[in-house]
Amino acid sequence: MSKPRGPYAKTSAKRQQIIDAALAAYAEAGGRNVSLRDIAQRVGMTYAGVMHHFGSKEALLTAVLEARDAAAEERFGPAAGNTEPPHSAVLRHNASTPGLVKLFVDLAAAAAEPDHPAHDFFEQRYERLRARLAERIEHGVADPAAVDAAWLARIFIAAADGLQLQWLLNPDIDMAADIDRLGEALVGQGWAAGSAPRRPAPDAPEGEGPAPSP
Amino acid sequence: MSKPRGPYAKTSAKRQQIIDAALAAYAEAGGRNVSLRDIAQRVGMTYAGVMHHFGSKEALLTAVLEARDAAAEERFGPAAGNTEPPHSAVLRHNASTPGLVKLFVDLAAAAAEPDHPAHDFFEQRYERLRARLAERIEHGVADPAAVDAAWLARIFIAAADGLQLQWLLNPDIDMAADIDRLGEALVGQGWAAGSAPRRPAPDAPEGEGPAPSP
Repeated sequence: MSKPRGPYAKTSAKRQQIIDAALAAYAEAGGRNVSLRDIAQRVGMTYAGVMHHFGSKEALLTAVLEARDAAAEERFGPAAGNTEPPHSAVLRHNASTPGLVKLFVDLAAAAAEPDHPAHDFFEQRYERLRARLAERIEHGVADPAAVDAAWLARIFIAAADGLQLQWLLNPDIDMAADIDRLGEALVGQGWAAGSAPRRPAPDAPEGEGPAPSP
Repeated sequence: MSKPRGPYAKTSAKRQQIIDAALAAYAEAGGRNVSLRDIAQRVGMTYAGVMHHFGSKEALLTAVLEARDAAAEERFGPAAGNTEPPHSAVLRHNASTPGLVKLFVDLAAAAAEPDHPAHDFFEQRYERLRARLAERIEHGVADPAAVDAAWLARIFIAAADGLQLQWLLNPDIDMAADIDRLGEALVGQGWAAGSAPRRPAPDAPEGEGPAPSP
C-alpha cells in the first residue's frame, strides 16, 4: 500500500508517533500507571494535542493495543517462520513488558461493557485470534479430525490471558513454561511446526514494538 | 463465633447490608455499570453514608468480591458435598451473573497495580485459590504422584478467568462445558470426588450471595 499524502499523511504520521511513544511508555512502566501527560511529553506535545489526534484516552489505548497485536503477528505469526507454539513465544516476550500486559488486561476487562469505545475492537480481536489459532492447530497436528481446534483455541487463549493476570500479581510464575506444558498435554509437542523440532523464538528486530497478549 | 455487640455490631450490620445490596446490584446489572449511588439507594443511604462505612469505592468493591468468594466456598467448596470439579460449578453459576463477573475482571486487572487498594486482596486470593485447588486435585486423583497439582491449579484458574473474559464479549461461549473438557483432558473424569460419579451442583439456598470467579 502506498503511503497517504497530503494532510492525512501528516496526521497519520503524528498518530503513529504518539502510538509508538505510548507503546514505549507502557513497555517501560513495569507495574506503574502511565499518564497521557507522560505520553504527550515524549512526543513534545500537550495533553490537548494528543487528544486532538485520538479523541479519547480509550481510543488512543485501543490504537496502542492494535499496534501491539500487529507487531506480535509480524514477529510471532506463521509468516515469521516461528516454529514455537504462538502462545509460548508471545508469553515469553510479554514477561518483559508488564506495563503492556497490565494495559491489556485493564482495557480488555473495561471493554466488556457494551458501550465501551474498545468493545468492538476486543470482540473482533478475540474472534480473529480464536479463528487463526484454530486454523494453525488444524494445520499443525498430524490428524486434524482428532482434535477440536475451536475448543483448543478458546482454552489456549483463556489460559494465556489468565496466566498473565496471575503473573502480574506474582511474577515468579513462568507463564511461557506453563503454557508450553499445556500445549504438550493437549496437542502434543511440536504442533506449531507440524512435526518439526521446536527452536527458541528469534530475537526481536531492533525498534520493533512489543507483543500483545496472545 | 458470637455476634459482636455495641456500636461495632451496628456498623458491621450496616456494612453487611451495603455489601449485600452491592452484590445484588452487580448480579442484576448484566453488562451495565453499577454506580455507588445505585447501591446507596438500595439501602436508603446517601453516597457519603456508604463511603463513611468503607472509605473508598475500591474498599467496598473488594469487600463485595470477598463476600462473593465466601458464598462460593460455602456453596461449591468441598464442605458443600459438591462432587463436580469446582470450576465447572462456579462457572455455570457465574454465567447467570455477568455483572459480578465483569466487576471481578475489572478489579483484578486494576489490582495488578502494586499501589491499588485491592492489590493485597487479589495477591492473597490467588495464592489461596491455587493452594486449595492443588490440594483438592491431589486428594481427588487416584495417583497424586502422577500429577503436578500446582501447575494444574494455575492452569485451571487461568483458563477459568480467561474464559470469563471471552464470555463477557461473546456470551455464546459455554464456559462450564469448556472447563469440564479441560478437566477431563488433564486430570480425568470425576476427579473432584475421587471416583464418584458427578452430579449437578445443588440449588442455592435462599438468599445466598452469588459465586466468585474461581
